Amino acid sequence: MLKQLRAIVGEENVSDDLADRYIYGSDASIHQSSPSVVVRPGSIKEIQEILRFANREKIPVVPRGAGTGESGSAVPLDGGIVLDLKRMDKILEIRPQDMFCRVEPGVINDELNRELKPYGFFFPPTPASGKVCTIGGMIANNASGMRAIKYGATRDAVLGLKVVLANGDLVRMGTSTIIQASGYQLERLMVGSEGTLGVMVEATLRLKPLPEERAVGRALFYELSQAGDAVSKIITEGIVPSALELMDEVAIKSVNKALKAGLPEVEALILFECDGIKASFNHEIQKIKKICEDCGAFDIIISDNPEEMEKLWEVRSSIFPATSMYKEDRIRATLAEDITVPVSRLPELVEGIHRIARENGIIIGTYGHAGEGLIHTAFLVNPRVSDEWDRTRKAVDEVFALVQHLGGTTSGEHGIGISKAPYFKKERKELLELMRGIKKVFDPHNILNPHKLMDAPEDFFTATKLRYPVKERR
Amino acid sequence: MLKQLRAIVGEENVSDDLADRYIYGSDASIHQSSPSVVVRPGSIKEIQEILRFANREKIPVVPRGAGTGESGSAVPLDGGIVLDLKRMDKILEIRPQDMFCRVEPGVINDELNRELKPYGFFFPPTPASGKVCTIGGMIANNASGMRAIKYGATRDAVLGLKVVLANGDLVRMGTSTIIQASGYQLERLMVGSEGTLGVMVEATLRLKPLPEERAVGRALFYELSQAGDAVSKIITEGIVPSALELMDEVAIKSVNKALKAGLPEVEALILFECDGIKASFNHEIQKIKKICEDCGAFDIIISDNPEEMEKLWEVRSSIFPATSMYKEDRIRATLAEDITVPVSRLPELVEGIHRIARENGIIIGTYGHAGEGLIHTAFLVNPRVSDEWDRTRKAVDEVFALVQHLGGTTSGEHGIGISKAPYFKKERKELLELMRGIKKVFDPHNILNPHKLMDAPEDFFTATKLRYPVKERR
Repeated sequence: MLKQLRAIVGEENVSDDLADRYIYGSDASIHQSSPSVVVRPGSIKEIQEILRFANREKIPVVPRGAGTGESGSAVPLDGGIVLDLKRMDKILEIRPQDMFCRVEPGVINDELNRELKPYGFFFPPTPASGKVCTIGGMIANNASGMRAIKYGATRDAVLGLKVVLANGDLVRMGTSTIIQASGYQLERLMVGSEGTLGVMVEATLRLKPLPEERAVGRALFYELSQAGDAVSKIITEGIVPSALELMDEVAIKSVNKALKAGLPEVEALILFECDGIKASFNHEIQKIKKICEDCGAFDIIISDNPEEMEKLWEVRSSIFPATSMYKEDRIRATLAEDITVPVSRLPELVEGIHRIARENGIIIGTYGHAGEGLIHTAFLVNPRVSDEWDRTRKAVDEVFALVQHLGGTTSGEHGIGISKAPYFKKERKELLELMRGIKKVFDPHNILNPHKLMDAPEDFFTATKLRYPVKERR
Repeated sequence: MLKQLRAIVGEENVSDDLADRYIYGSDASIHQSSPSVVVRPGSIKEIQEILRFANREKIPVVPRGAGTGESGSAVPLDGGIVLDLKRMDKILEIRPQDMFCRVEPGVINDELNRELKPYGFFFPPTPASGKVCTIGGMIANNASGMRAIKYGATRDAVLGLKVVLANGDLVRMGTSTIIQASGYQLERLMVGSEGTLGVMVEATLRLKPLPEERAVGRALFYELSQAGDAVSKIITEGIVPSALELMDEVAIKSVNKALKAGLPEVEALILFECDGIKASFNHEIQKIKKICEDCGAFDIIISDNPEEMEKLWEVRSSIFPATSMYKEDRIRATLAEDITVPVSRLPELVEGIHRIARENGIIIGTYGHAGEGLIHTAFLVNPRVSDEWDRTRKAVDEVFALVQHLGGTTSGEHGIGISKAPYFKKERKELLELMRGIKKVFDPHNILNPHKLMDAPEDFFTATKLRYPVKERR
C-alpha cells in the first residue's frame, strides 16, 4: 500500500510514522483511532488515483480538513487512509461581479475572508475555529457560526462543487449561478455528508457584501427566563441581528476566572451585534436595548468603537478555553456540544440541562447562538473518575432526549461523527434506509469514511479509545 | 382502478371525465399528455393509500400543484394518475418566534403571505405566478422570483418536509430549527426533484421579517451594454437590492402596446427596488441611481409612493401577457424560458439571444431577474407555420448552447420538466447515473413522475402532443 501511495503523491506526502498516525487518529472530539497511513495529495489527479487504488483494494479513506471537528467525523474508525486535504489550499478565483469565489478544500476560512475583504465581500459562515478550519471541513459538516441568523449557514452558500467519487471519477455538481432549478441538488446533498459520499476537491461559494459598519451590545439578566424572553421578543419583532449570543452562569464564571472579566455572576448574559449602515443598525440596536430593558436586563452596554467591541466579543470567544480551565482536575469533553431547538424553546433547554447536571452531580456550562436556537454545552469531566464518566454518559442521553422532546435536532453546526451518531439514528430513524441507499449509490464498496452517520456504532463511548487519560475503562 | 381510488378518496374526488383529463394533461408548457384519471386527495392518509395502491399496481403518479409550470413537470408523460394536491391547502402553524410556518402543499403563495403579514413576516420566494401557484409546486421546482437576490430561493427556505414515499411510507425530513448539521439533507434533495422522489405533504418553511418600507426606481438605456454595466456595478459595489429587473426592446414595445405605457422604445430598461428602513434603502437607491447615471441612463424615476411604485412595477408584471399579444398571429411558446448565467455574462447572453433570433428569422423578447443572472425569453411563434417551429427549435438549441458557453445553467427557477430535459441531460451528463441511482432508492418501481429529468425523452418536441394548433406536425 505504502509503495503504491508513494508512487502517486511522492515519498514526502505519505506517512505511516507512529506520531503522525496518532495525531491523525483524533480531532477535537473525545475519540482516538489511528489510520494505517496519512496521505497528503496536492492535486485532483492524485486524489483520483488514490481513490481508484483504494476502491480497487477496498481500503477505507477518510477525508480530513483541519481536524477541528468535535464529534469525530474525521476519526478513521476502520483505520485505512486519512486523506489530509490541507495542501489543496488555493483560492482559484474571486468574482465579486458574480457574487462567487472558487476555492480548493484546504483553504482556511479566515484566510479566504482576508482575501475577500479588499473586494468588499465575505463568506458568511463564521465558525469559532475560523482561524484554522478549512472550507472543505465546513462543507462536510455544514458549519454555521453566530452570523447564520442573518447570513445563512454553509448549506446556503454552496453553489457548486467538484467531487471525486469513490471510483475516482471527477464530477461537477451545481452551478456558477446564484439561483438554479436544474434537477436534483446533489451539491446540497454533499453538504453535511461528512466525507461519506465523495471527496470535495473544489467549491464555488456564494459571497455576500461586507456590511459597512457594526455595533455590539451586552445585557445582563438575573434570571435565565428573562434572557429567553428577550431573545424571543427580538426575533418576533422581526429584528435580524448579525449575532445574538447567550452565556449562562458557568460560562460567565469561567470567563471571569480566565480573563478577570469582572462580570456580575448572574444567570444569563446576552451579546448582540447589528450591522449595515449606521442609521440602520442604530435603529435595530436601540430596539434590542429597549426589549432587554423591558425584560429586566441591567448593565446594558452598547458600543460601535472597534476596541470596545473587541473587548465585548472577547468574553464570548474565550469561553471554550475558559471553561476548559474552570476546575483544575477537569477536562472539557466535547459531547452533545451543538444541540439546537426552535428559538422559543431555548429557556426550557437551558434550564433542563442545568437540572440534568444537578441530578447527575456533574458540571455543564451552556452558551451559544441563541438567535439560532443553538446551545453549546461544556461538559466538565474529571476523566480519572470512572463513575464520573458513567454519570456524564447518562446526562448526555438525557440532554438528547430533552432536545427531541423540545422539537430540536442532534446537531446544529458540528455534524454527527461518532459521538452523536446514536442520537442521530434515533432522530432520523425513518430515513436511515434511504440514507444507506444513497450511500451505496455513491460508494458501493463503502470505502469513504465508513461506519459513520447512519452506519455508526450504537455506543459512541466504546466505539474508539478515548483521547483522555481514563482510570477505569468500561 | 377507478373503483379502488374512489374507495380511498370518495367518488367526488376521482375523475376520468374527458374534460378533466384534458385539462390535467397540460400545464403552462407547450406539452399535452392526458392522465387516465385525476385524483384529489384530502389527507396524508389518503395519499399514502393511493401510493400503496399505485406502487403495487405499478401505475404512474404525477403530483400536481396549480399547473403553472412552464416546462411540463406536471404533464403525465406515461398517463396514469395525476395527484391534484390543491385540497391540501391548510396553513397548519405560524410561529414567528421560531421563524417558521408549517403548511400543506396546496397552500397558495400569496395567501400564505397574506396570512403571515399581520405577524410582520413573509415567505421570501416571489414567483410571478404567486397569486395561484402552490407551495408544493414551488418546492418541487425550486422556485425563486425577483427577490431571491436578497432573500434567497425556495431551496434556502425549506427547513423540513413530510414526504409520502413511493411505497406509501410517511417520513419526516429536516428539522424545525433554522440551522442543522444532522446528516444528509434529504429535504434539500427533495427541493427541485419535480415529484420524482416522493409526494411532499407538509413543509416547514423559514420566514423572514417583512421590510418596513421600500422604494422603486426605473432607468432607461439606449444601449443594452450600458444596462449590463450598471447591473454589474451595482452587484460589485455590494449593494443588495430587493429586486433588479431588466427588460429589452421587445418587452418594452409589448408593454407599450398592451398598457399604452408610452415608454421610450430603447434597448434596455432596468427596474430596481430597495427595502428596509427608510435611511437604509434611500442610501442604497441613491447609490444605484448614481451608478445608472454614470453608465449613461436617462429618464431615471425613483419613488416610494405606493401608487407610483405599483405603476412602475405594473410595467414588469404585465410583460408575460403583453408579449403574448405582441403580434396577432403569434402565441408565446414557453421554451428556454428561465436560462441563467453568472450576472456579469448577462449582456453577452441577451445580445446572443437577439443574434440567434435574427439569424433564425424569429422573434424573441428577453427580460428577467438581472441581479440573479436570470433571463426569461419570450419566443413568439406562429404555430400554424411548420417552418417557424423548425426555426424555433434550432434557436432553442442555440440559446442553450450559448448558456452553457457562458457558464450558465438550463433552468434558474422553473425546473426541467420535458422541454428542458435534453439540455439538462447534456449539462449534467456526469451526474445522470447518480441521479438515476437516487431515484431507484426512493422509487424502485419508477411510478413517481416517470420519464422526467435524467430519464426524459431525448427530443422534447416530439415527446407529447403540443398544446397549440399546429398546421403540420413533424
